[in-house]
Amino acid sequence: MTKPIYAPPIYDRVALIGLGLIASSMAHAMKQSGLAGEIVGYAKTEDTRRVAVEIGICDRVFGSAAEAVQGADLVVLAVPVGAMAEIAAEIGPHLSQGACVTDVGSVKQAVVDAVAPHIPAGVHFIPGHPIAGTEHSGPRSGFATLFQNRWWLLTPMPDSDPKAVARLRRLCEAMGANVDEMDVPHHDLVLAVTSHTPHLIAYTMVGVAEHMRRVSNSEIIKYSAGGFRDLTRIAASDPTMWRDVFLTNKEAVLDILGRFTEELFMLQRAIRMGDGEQLHAYFTRTRAIRRGIIEAGQDTAAPDFGRAAPAAKPGE
Amino acid sequence: MTKPIYAPPIYDRVALIGLGLIASSMAHAMKQSGLAGEIVGYAKTEDTRRVAVEIGICDRVFGSAAEAVQGADLVVLAVPVGAMAEIAAEIGPHLSQGACVTDVGSVKQAVVDAVAPHIPAGVHFIPGHPIAGTEHSGPRSGFATLFQNRWWLLTPMPDSDPKAVARLRRLCEAMGANVDEMDVPHHDLVLAVTSHTPHLIAYTMVGVAEHMRRVSNSEIIKYSAGGFRDLTRIAASDPTMWRDVFLTNKEAVLDILGRFTEELFMLQRAIRMGDGEQLHAYFTRTRAIRRGIIEAGQDTAAPDFGRAAPAAKPGE
Repeated sequence: MTKPIYAPPIYDRVALIGLGLIASSMAHAMKQSGLAGEIVGYAKTEDTRRVAVEIGICDRVFGSAAEAVQGADLVVLAVPVGAMAEIAAEIGPHLSQGACVTDVGSVKQAVVDAVAPHIPAGVHFIPGHPIAGTEHSGPRSGFATLFQNRWWLLTPMPDSDPKAVARLRRLCEAMGANVDEMDVPHHDLVLAVTSHTPHLIAYTMVGVAEHMRRVSNSEIIKYSAGGFRDLTRIAASDPTMWRDVFLTNKEAVLDILGRFTEELFMLQRAIRMGDGEQLHAYFTRTRAIRRGIIEAGQDTAAPDFGRAAPAAKPGE
Repeated sequence: MTKPIYAPPIYDRVALIGLGLIASSMAHAMKQSGLAGEIVGYAKTEDTRRVAVEIGICDRVFGSAAEAVQGADLVVLAVPVGAMAEIAAEIGPHLSQGACVTDVGSVKQAVVDAVAPHIPAGVHFIPGHPIAGTEHSGPRSGFATLFQNRWWLLTPMPDSDPKAVARLRRLCEAMGANVDEMDVPHHDLVLAVTSHTPHLIAYTMVGVAEHMRRVSNSEIIKYSAGGFRDLTRIAASDPTMWRDVFLTNKEAVLDILGRFTEELFMLQRAIRMGDGEQLHAYFTRTRAIRRGIIEAGQDTAAPDFGRAAPAAKPGE
């Protein structure tokens, strides 16, 4: 699919604060279609900044976030949620009038609480969250198609300028995403169900396996194709990002976890009681959700996610 | 990779009892490499039997399992675990002297209890379990490479003839699998960790999502890319097979579920208490298991399982 080149670009200078998977994928997508006149960046470590210029995701990098945002008409906060407050306090005085500040954090209320107080009048703050990712992290993990046909949620403030929202939406769509708007608390609840709690239970199951004494790690690894390996992919995501998600979306996650435990106990009891009918009915209902996801284009119907069969046996 | 054609074939006549994903994949793999002189089959429904001949996975089908096993030197029981006892009782009197009977069930103690009493002297019973599968089921879902580089566990009886075991092992390896032998209770424990409990928690999480009132099913489906969709694939597996797994591997599953709940409560408490250090340390450890699985060739390191990015937005 050939993408249109945007001329003029949607933003003249985009400042990426944090240069991990999401920011580097945005850079690739923006460069591919000419969506930004210039892309500048800031990352905490010298090494990441160097890599960013080397692989071409940033035209220029700066040693501080304050310098990076100067003169930018779009600032993207792409740091762990727990680091947002400090960054916002630092950049606040250096933001240009009329600029837009957005973020890509997986929770929204905590970001609003951390960032909004530092945004000066005349600057548009429009929180956002692209629901896309892989289990990899860092500046080299990005790729231009990460957002293709994924949802990008925007949670504008009640006083957000509709024109600024429309411009940001245009950028997200030009990177391949579908955009929805919703309010902040609803976002955090929806994501607790579709992302945060699934991650926590995946981490937990992998942790249980690791603690087993009577089953060796090598057995778990060898025989993982029966379902476990899919959980390990989720449980390989960035630990800092996920720590912050759970600490900052505490209420919604604890709510969903409570429901999960109730439900699990009900199924556990059915197993103990030998209630095959209840189990069968439950497992039949959950199939319908999967069909919906495939029909909505959010996953492939190919068996096993279309994984290629391994080419050869190890050691051969 | 070109496979050798086995001449003579490893078995002269293989009888597949049950013609779902595993049996049809075995048929494709055996035909591809000439591992069986003839493949005959039995399935409960007329429709499945007709399809099996139509798509060529069976040379002949029979209206009863008793007829299908006559003259076969390998009989593969590929029906849900709950159906094994009845099938074994039916075929017992019709098995040929010197024949091998194996199965592909996901639990082994229950299969041994159900099948062994019906196996006459002079017939070799060698339970087995290929750790391979997809979320699809039925005779059309099979493909020749399903077992490629997957593990096929054999759990021979104490009195199993080593020559019969070696021959069955040769078949599994010729279909592309790696073979390990282990004892029956250990198999059921290992699989409770790597497969059965992961499936149950995936089913549970999908069930929780479905029950939410404040989050619509369409929201869950649209925003599933954040982790949930991977669980839905696991939770789309065949309900009858999984009902039987949980009912027949009850003790091991309840044991692992107990550990899972303890562990989950510990993490839940860390979230409630805001213990970021504990969460971060836990999430860091689980990454190592993922690396092990990729190094062992049991999954791809490609981001997102190497799923292709969706080509276009819906409606475009």
